[in-house]
Amino acid sequence: MDPSSNCAAEMAKPAPKDMSHHYSDLTRARKPNSMKLFYKLFTIPGIGNFAGGLPNPQFFPFDTLEAQSAHPTRWTPTPNRPGGDALSSAMASAKVSDHGVKTASHVVVPHDAETPDLAKKIDLATALQYGQASGYPPLASYIRQFTRECLHPNVPYKGGPNVALTVGSTDGFSKVLDVFTNIWIEGKNDIRERPGLLTEIFMYPSILNQARPRGVQICPVEMDEDGMSPYGPGGLEDVLANWNDAKGKRPHLLYTVSMGHNPTSGVLSLERRSELYEICSKYDVIIVEDDPYWYLQYPSAEIEEAKARNKPIPEFKAANTLPKKSGYPFLDSLSPSFLNIDVDGRVVRLDTFSKTVAPGCRLGWVTSTPEICDRIILVAEAGTQQPSGFVQSIIAESIMGPQPEATAAFTSRSPKDRATFTGWKTEGWVRWLAGLRGAYEGRMNTMCSLLEENAYQLKQSTPLRDADADWGVITKTQLYEFDWPRGGMFLWLKVHLEKHPLFGAIGSEGNVINGPALSGALMIFLTHKPQLVLASPGMMFSATPQIAAQRGWSYFRLCFAAETDEMISACSTRFGQGIQRFWRIKKVAEIEALLEEAFPLETDVETNEVEDLTNMGWMGC
Amino acid sequence: MDPSSNCAAEMAKPAPKDMSHHYSDLTRARKPNSMKLFYKLFTIPGIGNFAGGLPNPQFFPFDTLEAQSAHPTRWTPTPNRPGGDALSSAMASAKVSDHGVKTASHVVVPHDAETPDLAKKIDLATALQYGQASGYPPLASYIRQFTRECLHPNVPYKGGPNVALTVGSTDGFSKVLDVFTNIWIEGKNDIRERPGLLTEIFMYPSILNQARPRGVQICPVEMDEDGMSPYGPGGLEDVLANWNDAKGKRPHLLYTVSMGHNPTSGVLSLERRSELYEICSKYDVIIVEDDPYWYLQYPSAEIEEAKARNKPIPEFKAANTLPKKSGYPFLDSLSPSFLNIDVDGRVVRLDTFSKTVAPGCRLGWVTSTPEICDRIILVAEAGTQQPSGFVQSIIAESIMGPQPEATAAFTSRSPKDRATFTGWKTEGWVRWLAGLRGAYEGRMNTMCSLLEENAYQLKQSTPLRDADADWGVITKTQLYEFDWPRGGMFLWLKVHLEKHPLFGAIGSEGNVINGPALSGALMIFLTHKPQLVLASPGMMFSATPQIAAQRGWSYFRLCFAAETDEMISACSTRFGQGIQRFWRIKKVAEIEALLEEAFPLETDVETNEVEDLTNMGWMGC
Repeated sequence: MDPSSNCAAEMAKPAPKDMSHHYSDLTRARKPNSMKLFYKLFTIPGIGNFAGGLPNPQFFPFDTLEAQSAHPTRWTPTPNRPGGDALSSAMASAKVSDHGVKTASHVVVPHDAETPDLAKKIDLATALQYGQASGYPPLASYIRQFTRECLHPNVPYKGGPNVALTVGSTDGFSKVLDVFTNIWIEGKNDIRERPGLLTEIFMYPSILNQARPRGVQICPVEMDEDGMSPYGPGGLEDVLANWNDAKGKRPHLLYTVSMGHNPTSGVLSLERRSELYEICSKYDVIIVEDDPYWYLQYPSAEIEEAKARNKPIPEFKAANTLPKKSGYPFLDSLSPSFLNIDVDGRVVRLDTFSKTVAPGCRLGWVTSTPEICDRIILVAEAGTQQPSGFVQSIIAESIMGPQPEATAAFTSRSPKDRATFTGWKTEGWVRWLAGLRGAYEGRMNTMCSLLEENAYQLKQSTPLRDADADWGVITKTQLYEFDWPRGGMFLWLKVHLEKHPLFGAIGSEGNVINGPALSGALMIFLTHKPQLVLASPGMMFSATPQIAAQRGWSYFRLCFAAETDEMISACSTRFGQGIQRFWRIKKVAEIEALLEEAFPLETDVETNEVEDLTNMGWMGC
Repeated sequence: MDPSSNCAAEMAKPAPKDMSHHYSDLTRARKPNSMKLFYKLFTIPGIGNFAGGLPNPQFFPFDTLEAQSAHPTRWTPTPNRPGGDALSSAMASAKVSDHGVKTASHVVVPHDAETPDLAKKIDLATALQYGQASGYPPLASYIRQFTRECLHPNVPYKGGPNVALTVGSTDGFSKVLDVFTNIWIEGKNDIRERPGLLTEIFMYPSILNQARPRGVQICPVEMDEDGMSPYGPGGLEDVLANWNDAKGKRPHLLYTVSMGHNPTSGVLSLERRSELYEICSKYDVIIVEDDPYWYLQYPSAEIEEAKARNKPIPEFKAANTLPKKSGYPFLDSLSPSFLNIDVDGRVVRLDTFSKTVAPGCRLGWVTSTPEICDRIILVAEAGTQQPSGFVQSIIAESIMGPQPEATAAFTSRSPKDRATFTGWKTEGWVRWLAGLRGAYEGRMNTMCSLLEENAYQLKQSTPLRDADADWGVITKTQLYEFDWPRGGMFLWLKVHLEKHPLFGAIGSEGNVINGPALSGALMIFLTHKPQLVLASPGMMFSATPQIAAQRGWSYFRLCFAAETDEMISACSTRFGQGIQRFWRIKKVAEIEALLEEAFPLETDVETNEVEDLTNMGWMGC
């Protein structure tokens, strides 16, 4: 994987194209930091620094930062291909240290590490000091290397990508909007300047919360179970080719969750990526790929789904057929990022530690061309600066640390203590991710197999006029349907509310009991005993109010990540049985009582302000 | 301090005025989060949560977060009034626990704390989970209470202020700009809509880095050693009363560092604050008060300065004469915030943990009216979300924790271990701040007294035509002057470069060796052996290129915070001696050689792009 091993090939690659014509006015106005002279002066040996307005690290009230850190083998991996050997394929030849069965190690970030190498120096004196917006050097350099060599070894442009740290992907997308869109105000700015954002018809609602106040027009693109559709009516090519300038500027920004889509769970194949990329290249569109769930891709889903439904078992196809490998079979088995086919340098990828470590990290990174990363860093300099040194140092120490030869705190420990002091290293980090995939894949399979049990209503009706018969005709109605998630944390379930006995009935005030009404009533009904389950209505994830009103009401998003294993099982059954019970409601008044309880939802639907449902903050994470 | 103790008085207070006419287009377009229904549903007992897209906390790889935390008594306080008893006045009646001479405690944030009270529950399961943009409940509620009851007990509007957490004050000011200014682009937007920012002629340069790309016009206001001038030529009233609309919109935003001004070190008196506030009220200006150094106010400075210069000792005047006290003599001795006289609700204050704990926290807060705080929180929801849970939980635990009755990790410890487990509480937090003030006050006094020694050049000249005389005439030239800082981390030193022998000399290319040139040369000269000191040139802190060219070149900012005690002493002497040596340079070529080395600076000055000097990132913190 060493780029120097193939230097000639690297030099022959095309440089990324200039994307500066897409920059916002604000980004054009930001000037790069002109501190070169000062950086030079700072490093004069023995210089007394009266210039920087920094507190001396002796005044930080923490002498160490420590943690009990899970051993990377805490969770059990699943195979990278059905029938494969889980552990060996996840770990490959990489040795994960000799901890064996230990489940936790004690991690210590000392106040002062002795190494002079800033890329390896992990201590509070540096981590808790002012730093550069490009991030804490040890962590930033680790992330850069991991990103370039392990996650995306096939990036086709010269020099490869760079990274810019963020305080999480919401911040990352906020910075992307800052770089690529002007604020557009209705009635003040020309409609032909209105920026647009291409995205799937069902999408992560926080994006709307970020884009809409800036006047960004959401331009929905049709999708199927895999993700965004390149061709066909409403597909990407269709939307762009038939763009009407009177509605706003033709969009030059596309947002997608391409691995474990939120909310629909699809994973874009390499083939689909190539088709979408070609269209984006033709119409000069920047692709923003937001993939917090990238490592949660489930090879078993397709096969287990077929088994559960007595369908023919499909043949397994490898998701990644690109030439360069990372050397980690787990990583190499995953569907690769758009970055790996990004000839032009038009892909901006968002990554985060929110799902691999914890949301409270508020730590993530952008991967893109060095030029675009520089622009992101300029935004950081004027706002967030760098992520918190507390999280940067403890994650750096957990993965990379310690440097036994250099850390005084380490060498003063007993040999037994020292044995607990091994950082995860990349092997351990990959093993942790593989273990998490295993744990989530198990939960996904549990939820799906239990939901299969209640998908149909079986109804035995006594034949009329035949009093002798002791059995009736059995009718089988599909109440809901779903794909077993190919990735991510969500199951996207379509409820056939149009088959509900009260669909189209007339309410007490002459109103029709329509899909949105039944959806709201069902959501509340499910929270009642004995169901006691809260699911997210599909209207929340609809890119526009029209989509919510026309189609969103059919869907619910079920997350199998938040609850305990026990609750996943219990609630999956309660959910399915709840829908069965909901079908037995025969009185409009019961629906209306539920809607009364869901009043804010109903209001939104009636006033066509479904968008408020999307303004959900962390709910839709 | 309990507000309920004076409920009638509270009810009689006027409500804060509506400031929404100052909001930016973007802020007007942001909609409040409409999640009330969901919050209600989440809290149904026994509900299975398939709605929120959260990972289960069991998958966080950290079982604890720990730290060795300094004991709050680590540093020795100085008296709140000259001649006072330092320790008793700093600690008042508050007992700081019984640790005595211990200097560190071990702080543990457990994975799960057992208390159901969210405002007291400090654990990783909550701190590392998605949270609300209003902040981690235990820390946010502590900061709110400390801010309302201890820092600003006299806020005159009904209900008092609220707080909104930030990821540091650079982020805080970025959010303030987002709320109160539109982006203005030259050649695209009407000049009469150009937003303006009132600020002192010398100022924190990062603000320029944030404001200028947005098209915000910097409107400098004259200042003296205390801070911004309300009246007189170039004072606040003058600037506003004589505003020319053809230059831009009359500014409705004022930025100031009012306690330990950066770079000039002044502390605004209550009287001065009242005068400035009255003008802001008259012209409807929002006051943004950015005070990272608020607790670093030095009662000894005025008196020690007088002693060192054989001037009459001035009478001590209490800085805070407001009626309500916090009960902590240290806090009550400090010059109070604008918030305490904010009848209208037009003050937005920025606070940070960067100087009280460490810059790497990236944690701070805004204090303002609840309405304005809500607007700040809406900005956070679309970007930073909340500060990192790592820093929020460890600071919360250090100050507030632990809850011994609830924490399993605590109760399983030995009695000896338990004794180390007492959070600082507010008493300890205030004591820590008082100790830091003591430490910084000592450093300030050291630097000042050593700088006094080299302020004058004494020159013995042999009288002409009197070969018998064995002594000459002694001339005394003041090379530099400064006030002993009344607060903050900086000393603002005026070098009389206009008295330098080469001032006005003609350079090798016919150019005049002017003030900016001598300033650049001096900065480089000081970095050479044997001086080896780096100081920040005053041009960096000039609000406009004009001010830099006209006056900024006279000044240097010296920070007494970053270096060790030993270096403060050694480098203060080296700095003073270095200026003496600089005065002995007699050849233009030597100055030109130094300028050659400072080339980027010189370029900036010549092209009138001194603003680049202000684009310094963390340098000017």
